[in-house]
Amino acid sequence: MRVRGFASDNNAAVHPEVLAAIAEANTGHAAAYGEDPWTARAEQLLRAHFGEQAASYLVFNGSGANVLCFRALCRQWESVICADTAHVQLNEAGAPERLAGVKLHALAAPDGKLTPELVATQLGRLGDTHAVQPRVVSVTQSTERGTVYSVGELQALTEHAHAHGLLVHVDGTRLSNEAAALDLPLRAIATDAGVDVVSFGGTKNGLLLGEAVVFLRPELSANFLYLRKQTLQLASKGRFIAAQFIALLEGDLWHRNAAHANAMAARLRDALSDVAEVRLSQPVQANGVFAVIPPSVVADLQREWRFNARQSTGEVRWMCSWDTTPDDVEALAAAVALACRAASADSDRAHSAVQSASARE
Amino acid sequence: MRVRGFASDNNAAVHPEVLAAIAEANTGHAAAYGEDPWTARAEQLLRAHFGEQAASYLVFNGSGANVLCFRALCRQWESVICADTAHVQLNEAGAPERLAGVKLHALAAPDGKLTPELVATQLGRLGDTHAVQPRVVSVTQSTERGTVYSVGELQALTEHAHAHGLLVHVDGTRLSNEAAALDLPLRAIATDAGVDVVSFGGTKNGLLLGEAVVFLRPELSANFLYLRKQTLQLASKGRFIAAQFIALLEGDLWHRNAAHANAMAARLRDALSDVAEVRLSQPVQANGVFAVIPPSVVADLQREWRFNARQSTGEVRWMCSWDTTPDDVEALAAAVALACRAASADSDRAHSAVQSASARE
Amino acid sequence: MRVRGFASDNNAAVHPEVLAAIAEANTGHAAAYGEDPWTARAEQLLRAHFGEQAASYLVFNGSGANVLCFRALCRQWESVICADTAHVQLNEAGAPERLAGVKLHALAAPDGKLTPELVATQLGRLGDTHAVQPRVVSVTQSTERGTVYSVGELQALTEHAHAHGLLVHVDGTRLSNEAAALDLPLRAIATDAGVDVVSFGGTKNGLLLGEAVVFLRPELSANFLYLRKQTLQLASKGRFIAAQFIALLEGDLWHRNAAHANAMAARLRDALSDVAEVRLSQPVQANGVFAVIPPSVVADLQREWRFNARQSTGEVRWMCSWDTTPDDVEALAAAVALACRAASADSDRAHSAVQSASARE
Amino acid sequence: MRVRGFASDNNAAVHPEVLAAIAEANTGHAAAYGEDPWTARAEQLLRAHFGEQAASYLVFNGSGANVLCFRALCRQWESVICADTAHVQLNEAGAPERLAGVKLHALAAPDGKLTPELVATQLGRLGDTHAVQPRVVSVTQSTERGTVYSVGELQALTEHAHAHGLLVHVDGTRLSNEAAALDLPLRAIATDAGVDVVSFGGTKNGLLLGEAVVFLRPELSANFLYLRKQTLQLASKGRFIAAQFIALLEGDLWHRNAAHANAMAARLRDALSDVAEVRLSQPVQANGVFAVIPPSVVADLQREWRFNARQSTGEVRWMCSWDTTPDDVEALAAAVALACRAASADSDRAHSAVQSASARE
Repeated sequence: MRVRGFASDNNAAVHPEVLAAIAEANTGHAAAYGEDPWTARAEQLLRAHFGEQAASYLVFNGSGANVLCFRALCRQWESVICADTAHVQLNEAGAPERLAGVKLHALAAPDGKLTPELVATQLGRLGDTHAVQPRVVSVTQSTERGTVYSVGELQALTEHAHAHGLLVHVDGTRLSNEAAALDLPLRAIATDAGVDVVSFGGTKNGLLLGEAVVFLRPELSANFLYLRKQTLQLASKGRFIAAQFIALLEGDLWHRNAAHANAMAARLRDALSDVAEVRLSQPVQANGVFAVIPPSVVADLQREWRFNARQSTGEVRWMCSWDTTPDDVEALAAAVALACRAASADSDRAHSAVQSASARE
Repeated sequence: MRVRGFASDNNAAVHPEVLAAIAEANTGHAAAYGEDPWTARAEQLLRAHFGEQAASYLVFNGSGANVLCFRALCRQWESVICADTAHVQLNEAGAPERLAGVKLHALAAPDGKLTPELVATQLGRLGDTHAVQPRVVSVTQSTERGTVYSVGELQALTEHAHAHGLLVHVDGTRLSNEAAALDLPLRAIATDAGVDVVSFGGTKNGLLLGEAVVFLRPELSANFLYLRKQTLQLASKGRFIAAQFIALLEGDLWHRNAAHANAMAARLRDALSDVAEVRLSQPVQANGVFAVIPPSVVADLQREWRFNARQSTGEVRWMCSWDTTPDDVEALAAAVALACRAASADSDRAHSAVQSASARE
Repeated sequence: MRVRGFASDNNAAVHPEVLAAIAEANTGHAAAYGEDPWTARAEQLLRAHFGEQAASYLVFNGSGANVLCFRALCRQWESVICADTAHVQLNEAGAPERLAGVKLHALAAPDGKLTPELVATQLGRLGDTHAVQPRVVSVTQSTERGTVYSVGELQALTEHAHAHGLLVHVDGTRLSNEAAALDLPLRAIATDAGVDVVSFGGTKNGLLLGEAVVFLRPELSANFLYLRKQTLQLASKGRFIAAQFIALLEGDLWHRNAAHANAMAARLRDALSDVAEVRLSQPVQANGVFAVIPPSVVADLQREWRFNARQSTGEVRWMCSWDTTPDDVEALAAAVALACRAASADSDRAHSAVQSASARE
Repeated sequence: MRVRGFASDNNAAVHPEVLAAIAEANTGHAAAYGEDPWTARAEQLLRAHFGEQAASYLVFNGSGANVLCFRALCRQWESVICADTAHVQLNEAGAPERLAGVKLHALAAPDGKLTPELVATQLGRLGDTHAVQPRVVSVTQSTERGTVYSVGELQALTEHAHAHGLLVHVDGTRLSNEAAALDLPLRAIATDAGVDVVSFGGTKNGLLLGEAVVFLRPELSANFLYLRKQTLQLASKGRFIAAQFIALLEGDLWHRNAAHANAMAARLRDALSDVAEVRLSQPVQANGVFAVIPPSVVADLQREWRFNARQSTGEVRWMCSWDTTPDDVEALAAAVALACRAASADSDRAHSAVQSASARE
């Protein structure tokens, strides 16, 4: 197996600057549970990025951040609208339903993006006490399909949601990738676009571990301290999560890491552009390349490279991260091209054989 | 404020060997979600300490470990017996009830220790379908009152529990302190004593962050992977929690840290033994000193030192950790003695004044 | 408003034989919570209808029965597959998610019926610990769209489910209507078709109140007494629910009521067959008629008759019940025909006016 | 077994006037789910009894009413203070914790009654985000120990609770018995005493089935319709629960039934007053007699009479109901006296035998 693969941006290492920040924070005692100066500084930096009103809370992981947002925003009879490709729908093992108690209305969205029209299909029974009541529209930026929302698309969603009394949550596990892709500050694609609360990702952008729940309407966060504690997402040695966010946000590390990952994905797309057997199944807009390749090629490649593939559709996902190198990309592209040519030759031979057999009859 | 205080062992820094292990693991890519070689090694070491049958799962924090154990052991109509001083009862913000859905039967235990007699008071309605059914006895080793169970006491509890069809969970946030206090291997005070599952603590013994759920009866852990994921306790970059446990368990760091913390507590007790105003409220058996001191002394001390005090009872808790130094201890003891003398002098003066006033009448 | 309408079979009165049975049971004291002779007799009758192995539990209402079945069958990480028209999906206010903690996979099924092909789309991640695990296929007999499963269709579903380790639940709020429609005993469309557990409806078939959870694989019901009590579905004066089921099941009242309701629906369909403006949107197979009628007609009719209509689609639902009379049906059909003719005339006039106006130009 | 026993007031039959009201309501169709004229009338009568601001909701059973109140009043991190003898603590199979997610703080109260002093012991951590937050004080009127709160006692509790930002819930399964015992209107012991919400019992006071959740501060009931539906406590044929409450509350049936049951308990107490072996363990203030009798007498009596006895303490509970007759009471008292005399004679004989044997040695 290669030292670095394309399985997921969470397979990557910790950025050296992040590790250094942890080491630097490792001095003397500090108050536990987020009452330390590092946490205060991280919250200040999050305000700098998301706006002065932002109320931030550090947590362990992305599922934790998402479930916490649902617990904070939904009353007992309320529900969440999301895309059927959403992480909350597919990859949280039923935590939204079991731990937050919310129903998810998962809507077919091949490119991973919700629209006001899709959301509107779920609003026909507002006020009907026999039906669960949609309260949150949850979108992912950048999406699980490697796409990004334009600011206009996002604004259309938040305006529509607010007009119907709903709130908008962003699963921002890869929000930095979206911001880098659009070349916009975080604030522009969240706060200014009307988003209410963000699960802001750190782990997939170079941290050891850590996400932040950022309320852009801070009145929604009243009592969130109780919820974070109860939902098992409060670190006792909080300074070590905070120190990582300081490393990420104090300078431009968040942007450097994300922009690099995005650039590697674009480079991979370009490097594969003349391999006829590779058909992109989504536009490459962030740090992932989604493509359909011949099934026989997948197994071949996976002997050396880690990446995800869906057997049923032949679709593969190649994720780039802050530590993906141009050499990694070139090597994978070369291996794909080689495997595709070999498969193609096999297929030609088989085809000829069939034709020959056919001709003999 | 002093660089180091006595508020909690989770105020301490990360042990340098642990930090070095994190840095060493920070190379190339690794499969996420615990499917990496570091995790495999950590699990192997946990088996070495707890017995070959031990099935271990790394998680983020102690509340997470405890709630997960309850979710794994209890069916929907089952409950947990614990001491009224237990962390699960007092300091998890209702997570056992809200997230695991279990009722807690919290029994008065001034020294923090359950007994078969106490447990027996809750078993009168086994089989009665109108009553919640006790399923787990949860004990803390070492306890939240700074005491330890003898092996005999623990065996009596596990035998009694098993005889009635109950299971025994250990909140082992400070299990290493208990082992060091008794000078026994971890196995002796858990596996061999009949315990069924342990929340094995790392954070309070020198880690940055990390606990392990260790099933000593592995058949109880079937499907635990689903539960850990759903309960928001699965780290994606799992190698960095595992690496810490390797540092802790590969040599004797777990024991060194815990024994040192215990020794510092004993030293503090001894240093205070001739301060008449300090009355121990619990025997010092692990790494905490519990004492009642004059209320007026508390505020005085807390200007310089971090530690917990209960206003209603005048009881203070001084916790020692792996990084507490003999100098820290001597300095605190001296400050306590000084403050007590000052308070005593004040009190004498006040008393004399009253007497003088009295005499004048 | 008419004395009787077509809004729902739960708008109907209590059948006189049922009321008489309640009165007859109202003598002296009886043990509470289902430990009375009436309950024993009702359970015996349910065994007579569903097979000797059937384990039955009386409950208050249909949502209660359904949620209880999910609680009994699903572990914490398991989920339920249903049609997107299912009562559990649309009309239980999120109780399956909030109270049972299960995720629902609601599949598009215009006629309200699941198929093995539909179910198969949800089985791709069995064993993947990041995904919720489908455990139950929940079908409704007769469906919320007025259709019925053939025995063959049902058997195909149960065989497919069992082959993949899933269980089959029937929301049988109107199971009697289905049995009557197919002219089969209850056993044939449940037990013999491979169903695992049924929510067997009473309220919509002439009872005052009462449903039964019937386990056809009784080993699934171990501990169900705890769950029924905890889920707030245990009546203290249980004899009065049991007495109603005795009235329903001792003779053929269950069949008489259901067959009558079905016959009234068929009669309504026939009576409307020559009204051109009425287009059936589902075949009439049980006790409901689903049709699309001109929107302007709906409001007209609803001044005198209670029935449900969906504004967005113009679809109406006319439900018949045990007490619907042929006169009711004739009167409604006549009113529909009249209103349609009036609407048509209006439309013609409007059309002519437009044409005249057009001609004048 | 006797036709009528003393096991529980829910072993009693339905009062004939209640049954007649059900039969009278059984005419034609009625809108389902509480949107019928009977429900409107029942709500009007509840306002007449509890005050014009009262917002009432009919439900199936007492556990349902209690759990619903907790769901309505508590946020996710909030808890309930109750007596350790409370039905919610002992006899709801963990539903408060599992379904409402609340922690119960169950306080030792031998007579079943809370006091401000007891409540105060649980308020030390208000605002501490690591601790669950008490929100509701739940009292039972009349209590599970057969005692009643004076208005003054209740007012002291509600004032104390409100002063600390808590709400007061009454489990009023037997509120009518309490009102009758104090010879006060329902309003005086609930609304006027400062109670916030009541689970008002019907089933144990002559109904077939039915309780009412009555909000005395109606702003607390916003959205309660969603909760009732979701918590599985909404009857479809609601008129038949409403009709029973009309029968109970339109005249004085509620009072007649309760006063009669209370009188029968007092009569039983008096009839036993000269049986030396019967020691009352609680004052008889409502419709239950709690006493300790010789263990050997219990089994003897239970061959003919249904009643509850606790083996461990020898305490028996004799509950009277609306249909207990003076003859029932006299017969039980005579049987008790007889059995006690027999036991006493046995004991004397045994004693003599021991003495004789002793003398012979």
